Order: sequence, then C-alpha cells, then structure tokens
Amino acid sequence: MDADRVIADLRELDRLTGGPEGARRMCWTEAWEQARAFLRERLAELPVAVDVDEAGNLWAELAGERDAVVVVGSHLDSVPSGGWLDGALGVFAALEVLRARGQRPPVTLRLVDWADEEGRFGRSLFGSSAVAGTLDAAAVRDLRDRDGVRLEDGVGIELANAGEARSRLKDVRAYLELHIEQGPVLESRGEPAAAVLGTCGVERHVVVFVGQTAHAGATPMAMRRDSFAAAAQAALAIAQIGFEHDGVCTVGGATSEPGIPTAVAGRTEMLLDQRHLDPEKLAAMLAAARDACRQAAAEHGCEVELQPTWSIPPVPFDQRLIAVAREAIGKDIAIPSGPLHDASELARVVPTVMLFAKSSPPVSHTKEEDTPEPDLRVAIEAYGRTVARAMELVGAGVL
Amino acid sequence: MDADRVIADLRELDRLTGGPEGARRMCWTEAWEQARAFLRERLAELPVAVDVDEAGNLWAELAGERDAVVVVGSHLDSVPSGGWLDGALGVFAALEVLRARGQRPPVTLRLVDWADEEGRFGRSLFGSSAVAGTLDAAAVRDLRDRDGVRLEDGVGIELANAGEARSRLKDVRAYLELHIEQGPVLESRGEPAAAVLGTCGVERHVVVFVGQTAHAGATPMAMRRDSFAAAAQAALAIAQIGFEHDGVCTVGGATSEPGIPTAVAGRTEMLLDQRHLDPEKLAAMLAAARDACRQAAAEHGCEVELQPTWSIPPVPFDQRLIAVAREAIGKDIAIPSGPLHDASELARVVPTVMLFAKSSPPVSHTKEEDTPEPDLRVAIEAYGRTVARAMELVGAGVL
Repeated sequence: MDADRVIADLRELDRLTGGPEGARRMCWTEAWEQARAFLRERLAELPVAVDVDEAGNLWAELAGERDAVVVVGSHLDSVPSGGWLDGALGVFAALEVLRARGQRPPVTLRLVDWADEEGRFGRSLFGSSAVAGTLDAAAVRDLRDRDGVRLEDGVGIELANAGEARSRLKDVRAYLELHIEQGPVLESRGEPAAAVLGTCGVERHVVVFVGQTAHAGATPMAMRRDSFAAAAQAALAIAQIGFEHDGVCTVGGATSEPGIPTAVAGRTEMLLDQRHLDPEKLAAMLAAARDACRQAAAEHGCEVELQPTWSIPPVPFDQRLIAVAREAIGKDIAIPSGPLHDASELARVVPTVMLFAKSSPPVSHTKEEDTPEPDLRVAIEAYGRTVARAMELVGAGVL
Repeated sequence: MDADRVIADLRELDRLTGGPEGARRMCWTEAWEQARAFLRERLAELPVAVDVDEAGNLWAELAGERDAVVVVGSHLDSVPSGGWLDGALGVFAALEVLRARGQRPPVTLRLVDWADEEGRFGRSLFGSSAVAGTLDAAAVRDLRDRDGVRLEDGVGIELANAGEARSRLKDVRAYLELHIEQGPVLESRGEPAAAVLGTCGVERHVVVFVGQTAHAGATPMAMRRDSFAAAAQAALAIAQIGFEHDGVCTVGGATSEPGIPTAVAGRTEMLLDQRHLDPEKLAAMLAAARDACRQAAAEHGCEVELQPTWSIPPVPFDQRLIAVAREAIGKDIAIPSGPLHDASELARVVPTVMLFAKSSPPVSHTKEEDTPEPDLRVAIEAYGRTVARAMELVGAGVL
C-alpha cells in the first residue's frame, strides 16, 4: 500500500469536485459524475472489470485465483458543502488495495463505490441497502431532495429494479471499509486509527409536551402549565441518562407554540436521538428517557407523548474481522460508531468490519473536516494490512 | 349603572364584528370601523360631542358643570381571532357611565376609544402613547402588519401629526379603565373583580448560547458543548427566579441551529421575558437571570450573551384612586397587571387606575376568552362606583 498515492488521489478529487464551500459530490449530480469519471480513469490503469449495478453502485472486480470475494470500498458522494475525506477516503484506499495487489490475487477483490450514502433525498445508505435487501422502493419513491426533485426522477436508475443489485453479494465472504471517524474520540486519545466495533442502534423520537398557552405577564408562576419548562427538565435528565449508560442521548432542539416572548408555551416538540452499541442498554436508555419525560411533564402539569420517528438496532461487526483490524493497527483500540455507514447494511448479510481514521478537527459534514496526513498514512496502511489478512482468512476458508 | 345594557351592547358588538374564529376588530380594518360605527350609534343617543383626534382615538365629551375632566374608556380593537371582552368591555362600561349620568354632571366626562391598543403593526398602545407623548413617529413609520402593510400607510391618520393628540389631556384630572384580567388570578381566588396596582415593568431579552455543533452519534456526552442543554438549564433556573422574587419569568421558546435530530445544537437563541411591579425586584430578577445564564453556559462549555430587545419600567397607578377602587369593590383585593394597557401610558401623565374583571376561562387573545355574566355585572357596577367617587374627588378639587 502506497498511502501517498491515496492522498494524492484524494487531493486531486478535491480539486475536481470541491471548492471554497467544500465537497459538491451530492449523488447523481454533475460533480458526483465527475468524481466517478475520475475513479474510472484510475481504474482503467488496472486489469479490472468495471460496471454499475441496478442500484447505481459502481463495482470493479479484480479476479483472483478463487471465486470467493472480499469487498472493499466506501462512497464518493458527499453532503452539500461536505468534507474532502468523508467516503472518498475509503474508496481511494480500496483502489490502492487493488493497485497494490497486481494481476491475480489469491481471492477475488471487488471495489465498490456505494450510491447515495448521504441520502440526498432523505434516505441514507441508498445503494448499500439495495444490495443488503432492505431498500423499500415504494417507501422512498416520492421522497424529494432540497430542490424538490423526486427520488424516482433523480436517482438515474430504474428504481423498481434496484433490489436486483442483491446479486452482487454472490460469493462475498467479507466487507471492509475505511472511513473517517466524524467525531472527537480518536483525536482526544491521540490515536490515528481504530477498529470499529459496530454501528450503534438508534432510537429517534419527537417528544411532544402539551401544557397551556398563557399570557407571560398575567399568569403567576404557580399557575403555569409550561411545555417549554417540561421539555427543558426532560432534556437535562436525558443528557444524564446518556452519561449513566455510556451511550449518547441528544436533544437537538425544540419548537414551541406560540413561540413568542409574551406567552407561556402551550406546546413544545423536542427532537430526541439516542444511540448505543448494546441493544439492551439502548432499550434501557429509551425507557429511562420515557420516564424522565413523563416525570417532567407531570411536574409542569403537562401531557407528554413520545412519537417514534425512526429506529435501527445496533449492528455489531464481525468479531474475527475486528480482531484482525485490531492486530493490523498494532494497538488495542476499538470504538463503536455513532453514525451509520454502508457497512451497517453490509454487516446484516456478510462478515464486516470498519476502520476509522482520526478526525482532526473532529467535525463532520463541513469543509473544515480534516485528518492530518501522517494520521491518514497510518490509517490507510492499517486498512491495507487488515484487507490482506482478511484475504488470507478467506483463502484459507476460515471466513 | 345598568350592567345589563353594557352586556347587551357587548353581545351586539360580538354579533357585528365577531364570528366563528373570534373578534376581527384589528385596528383600521373594516370590522373595526363597524365597531366604531356601532359605538357612534349608541353615542348619538346622548348629548355628547364626538370626534377623532390626530392619533385616531375617538372621543365623546359630556360637558359638566366644571372644566375639570375625568376620562373613561378602553379600546375597541382586537387581535386577530380575539375575544369579545378584551378592550370592548371597558369602552361600553365607559359608555354606560355617560349614559347613567344624564345631561350635565358636576365635572366633565370624556369617553375615549384608544386606537390600536393591540399593536397591529407591532407597536402596542399606539393611540394612548401618542396622547401621553411617548410615540416616536419616525421609529414606527416603517413597521408592517402581518399582511405587509406599512404602518404609515395603514393607520388612516397623518402620522406626523399624531403627537398633537396630546392636547386632549387639557384639564384631565383622572383616567379610569375597566378591562378583563387576561390571567387566572381572580378566577383562582373566586373574585369577580379587583383594583389594579399598576402595570409591571418588563425586561425582554434574547439569550444566545453558542457551543459547538457536533454529530449526535459520534460525539461522546463528555465532549459536548451543547447550547440547547445550556439553555434548558438556564430556563429552569430562571423559572425558579420568578418564584423566588414573586414576579414572573418566562422562556417562551428557543431556536437551535442546526436544529436537527442528528446534531448537538451549536447555537440556541432563547426568548426571555421578566416582569415585576417593583423596579428593584425587576432589576434583581434580571441580574439573577444573567448569572443563571452564565453559569449554565459555563457548565456546558458555551458562551452566552443577553441581547436586550425591549424594556419598560413598572407603572404604578395612583394610590388615591387605587383606594377608591378597593372601596368600590367592597373587598380589599388589588393585584398587579402583567400585561400592559393604555392605562400604562396615561398613568405617566395623569392620576390613573384600572379595575379588572375576572377572566374565566383564564385565557386571553383567543375566542375562548370569557367572563361569566354575574361577574361582569359585579365588575361593571364597581367600575361605575369608582368613577362616581373619582368625579366627586375631582369636583372637590382633591384630584
């Protein structure tokens, strides 16, 4: 693995599809097509077969001595004004895996560039979920992007056929993905890279507190049924629940009605997101949050309802591959991923692991996203060693 | 005083200018003109001179044996979808005062219907502030109503001349206004009416907490700088400050950025309104709120700034007239007003008092606003006795 070649490719991609506002590679846009064209140019230098599946994922296969397949990859698409590494790092590290392998490896290597990981239309992990068999075409058809384009009109594929991409899993024995962390854990520990234990389960709710709208001047404190105060009390308790369970609980904001300075808020809707890698702890955090909301509502004379908006169970990665990644990193550092990844979909159906590269500054989905080059090199090289060892295990029939 | 005539007038006004969504008497609209036409019809039965001043206030003068004037009145205008009593009660109770007085009372009585008390363009107490000399024409000229109409184009008067309405205070010795409470205090005490001690001073701020936007999944609890959590902690402390100082402190809502479920809020703006009748306690509440915001910000790694948006000092009413109103009610019940009223403007320049009628249900600025008829009668009759006694004091040269 020549990490410098990967970094050079990433810089070139950034030059082609970035700019003063950051990456512009939203899926199925011109900049994304440019990114794919650049990837195809690089792939053209290798003895690989390149094609696009029914869900829009790009595949490049380097046939090996055996039919058994190891898949490497990530996604080229970005959010609007995104970072240069999010997704692209994993694609070009995978390219380098193929490049470094020469003509005919012992097992077949397949590079994948997943379509619309970022969910331009609000449905994240589009291409990888099609391959994993969890994409419901009818449920996503009418989603719209922020410019009002319908998903079915904008995806550049025949949506009804997307599920046929599942055939790409034939003979696949393992999926390995390198990605930036998108958080502050590795930076705070001074570590360039880590094995990833899995992606956290998520419970997402809108919590609705209903009290009584009242005149802010005319209503004594003791006579209020203040929905914002109830939400505030619940939000603080919920943060504590995150600490206590070693998970994360986030109240991203709240919207009150009437939402004016002169009225006690009669209704407040609060955004709640809870994540944990352990399904039992995730369930315990949700139960505790429910209790905290009920208690806060009761103390402020309000009603409360938790409206579920989305949830996904934790997706643990493959224990054997986690061990391989830990060994490749050379340090026993392994952390859960709060964000979801294409690997969350793949792990449902094949042994999967991810590696994280440090994010520094530890911000995500912004042009300020970065990883210092020495850390990128460490992470890319560890990824290469992880894939090499996974190929050995597949070759030996262990995976 | 025939309270039933007042109630009958109010019902008729509601029939003319109310509807399924409530009162439609926004100032300078057709429904408001209808309300004024109805009031003029009733005034036409009396030996009064009716005219409109430079600020749009309607006046009806019943000349008395002396030039000294007692002013009675309130406002016919309403908020959109307002209640049937807010403002109108005081105007028709004042009409009944004139009606009950016959031809030539010992002192002159002047009825006033203040223009745009509700602030259709965002400037409350429009007409009464012009008379009190606190209306700044240049500062309000370009305000717009919710349909985009500019104040100067929509008020139906020559704005530059509005200040000349101050001449209406000539010989005025007292101002007395009956209004519904718009709060729950009298209902909770089982009282139909109360004297009003004054209108509370108000300190209004936008409190801006700035932390760090971060991925809700990738950012451990201990590494967050959560602006919403800081706001929540401050809001709870501020409610406690209201209790401790026997005032009211309201956080009507908060707006977070990015304000999505998947991000720790980097910035949260919180609406803060604090009111007290005692200027020292109001200042103490603001100082305590400032401390609470700073402490909450510090505990969550945030910066905080209190941006003042509006303030008004407490306006105490005339002690002699408060005593008269208490006596007229026959019970020693007197409460402060959290909401502002035209009387807040008048009290700057002439001895002033208000009486409140119970609100039941205790809601305001909605079609559900109401007062049971027996309570209305008690309040209207107490108002009549208060005005009568005030006229005696003015006649005796005491006021």
